[in-house]
Amino acid sequence: MNKHVGSQSIKFHNPPSIISAAAVVGKKEGEGPLGKYFDRASDDMLFGKDSWELAESAMVLETIKLAIKKANLKETDINYVLAGDLLNQSTGSTFGVKDLNVPFFGLFGACSTMGEAMSLGAILIDGGFADYVVASASSHFCAAEIVFRYPLGLGTQRTLTSSHTVTGDGAVVMCANGSVAPYVTAITTGKIVDMGLTDANNMGAAMAPAAVDTLVAHFKDFNRTPDYYDLILTGDLGHVGHELVVRLMKDEGYNMTKNYTDCGIEIYDQKKQDTHAGGSGCGCSAVTFAGYLYQMMQQGTYNKILFMPTGALMNQTTALQGQTIPAIVHGVVIENTKG
Amino acid sequence: MNKHVGSQSIKFHNPPSIISAAAVVGKKEGEGPLGKYFDRASDDMLFGKDSWELAESAMVLETIKLAIKKANLKETDINYVLAGDLLNQSTGSTFGVKDLNVPFFGLFGACSTMGEAMSLGAILIDGGFADYVVASASSHFCAAEIVFRYPLGLGTQRTLTSSHTVTGDGAVVMCANGSVAPYVTAITTGKIVDMGLTDANNMGAAMAPAAVDTLVAHFKDFNRTPDYYDLILTGDLGHVGHELVVRLMKDEGYNMTKNYTDCGIEIYDQKKQDTHAGGSGCGCSAVTFAGYLYQMMQQGTYNKILFMPTGALMNQTTALQGQTIPAIVHGVVIENTKG
Repeated sequence: MNKHVGSQSIKFHNPPSIISAAAVVGKKEGEGPLGKYFDRASDDMLFGKDSWELAESAMVLETIKLAIKKANLKETDINYVLAGDLLNQSTGSTFGVKDLNVPFFGLFGACSTMGEAMSLGAILIDGGFADYVVASASSHFCAAEIVFRYPLGLGTQRTLTSSHTVTGDGAVVMCANGSVAPYVTAITTGKIVDMGLTDANNMGAAMAPAAVDTLVAHFKDFNRTPDYYDLILTGDLGHVGHELVVRLMKDEGYNMTKNYTDCGIEIYDQKKQDTHAGGSGCGCSAVTFAGYLYQMMQQGTYNKILFMPTGALMNQTTALQGQTIPAIVHGVVIENTKG
Repeated sequence: MNKHVGSQSIKFHNPPSIISAAAVVGKKEGEGPLGKYFDRASDDMLFGKDSWELAESAMVLETIKLAIKKANLKETDINYVLAGDLLNQSTGSTFGVKDLNVPFFGLFGACSTMGEAMSLGAILIDGGFADYVVASASSHFCAAEIVFRYPLGLGTQRTLTSSHTVTGDGAVVMCANGSVAPYVTAITTGKIVDMGLTDANNMGAAMAPAAVDTLVAHFKDFNRTPDYYDLILTGDLGHVGHELVVRLMKDEGYNMTKNYTDCGIEIYDQKKQDTHAGGSGCGCSAVTFAGYLYQMMQQGTYNKILFMPTGALMNQTTALQGQTIPAIVHGVVIENTKG
């Protein structure tokens, strides 16, 4: 019973239901175009804690607990939590979930993490290994700036190609034998792509080729074209990366001009919110899905989406050492029918 | 077809074969008691590169390629690579595998990573999602010292409870429908356990309660006692943590005095090699399994083992902020029969 399709995809035989979703964000995200779709926007960037790092963990715990509650479940019903974030050694997630008392798989896919968590979560359920799985991904602007760029206190000028890390956690509960739409019907797992770019202030350009790699693989594996989907969303390429994907995909023979956008574009109002190239961070795609898209699918505004969180796999050391920025993009197909 | 057993375990219906294993280590590990079981011990801690970080990545790539070669496979035969390490944002693994051109799931479980990679790899295969999966975990003494302790140049005195991070990568190739022993027959996935310890120079003590938590869950889920196994190995608790596990397990009603050791004890000669509490790092359990244990199982010296890599989920920031050290331990059952 091989569920592998083509070069790097899986079609699920028992597609998991996404039975609930929760998104908790920061003030700026709450003020953005998707603000009304989030469960809570915190005015307090510290979430009542003493450090940005603990603030992120508090946000993670709040979001996961809320997703479980919205699914009418208890924490003891959950077989596995899969989660990741941007902090060194993933402490945003681990310190967040450590008191949940649920078996835990820690993931690192940079900003592709929500795609990785939903992929492995769907595998656990489709394969009969779990009844309920939580997938979560988070980032916090202030904590991420310290890890990847400059401490906030320096007041460093940001380049126009740079993106703004989303403060937010998005979490979903996936369920076996569910009859509630939407379903995770297929995945295409990314390979690491490195085109030799080194500018950590232009992540969109660094990640765009990886998005194209996974998109082309996905369409070939399933013999589909972009118009199969109501909406195709990359993770956090922002305006710069989005434009590149459209152009590179055209070279590959695919028309992405009709139904393709990027979570990093949707989450902020670029002009009013001064977010330059757009949103980024693990939380960007996670809250855009768990907040906005999940509700749009429940309402039937979209019935077939291809969700593609995008991750840049660098760190401060590799940047300072002049290394390139490898990237990875995981595709997750979410549909209102079982496919 | 639910494969979930008890509170946090899985019994595989189609146990994956581990068809090959490779271990590449540093000089010190090559000089230790397990030296002759490793494929290569590099005299050059830089592995021909310009930084400790790139050295680790070179070691990862060499090990994974070797494991694939020993399985008589090509890189294009591999459906997924699952890997992780200790560096910030897991760049030891990502820069290692980026040129492999294989779909990649990045993991973070600190030194429990080999257990997590083998667990999720076995899930991918048992569930019919993959034919061949590579699981890998690595650490490099010099790179890890910078991330977690002090730059080597400072010549800082080490406490006697501190462990020595293993330079090494261990990788295995797992295969579906294999008829070659050993097999991954079951897993018990750890919960995060935090007993409030804060001493980053005594990781063994911090991780021991998490090892006990997973051990007790495992024995209860499968209604087994320690004597079911020829050997039980925790990951890298070292001498201090090993002693604690024996004592805490006695309180739980289990006798661990007969067949229980720790990879951090086995890998170095404590007296001759001046390694204090023993070995640690993702590579410690990974190379002990992929080098030594895999050969011992092939020879039939051991037929049933419980392999339990142990991870401390802290980072430099959480340590400096005075946070506790949460830990997680993943159990993997490897047997010469399909169980």
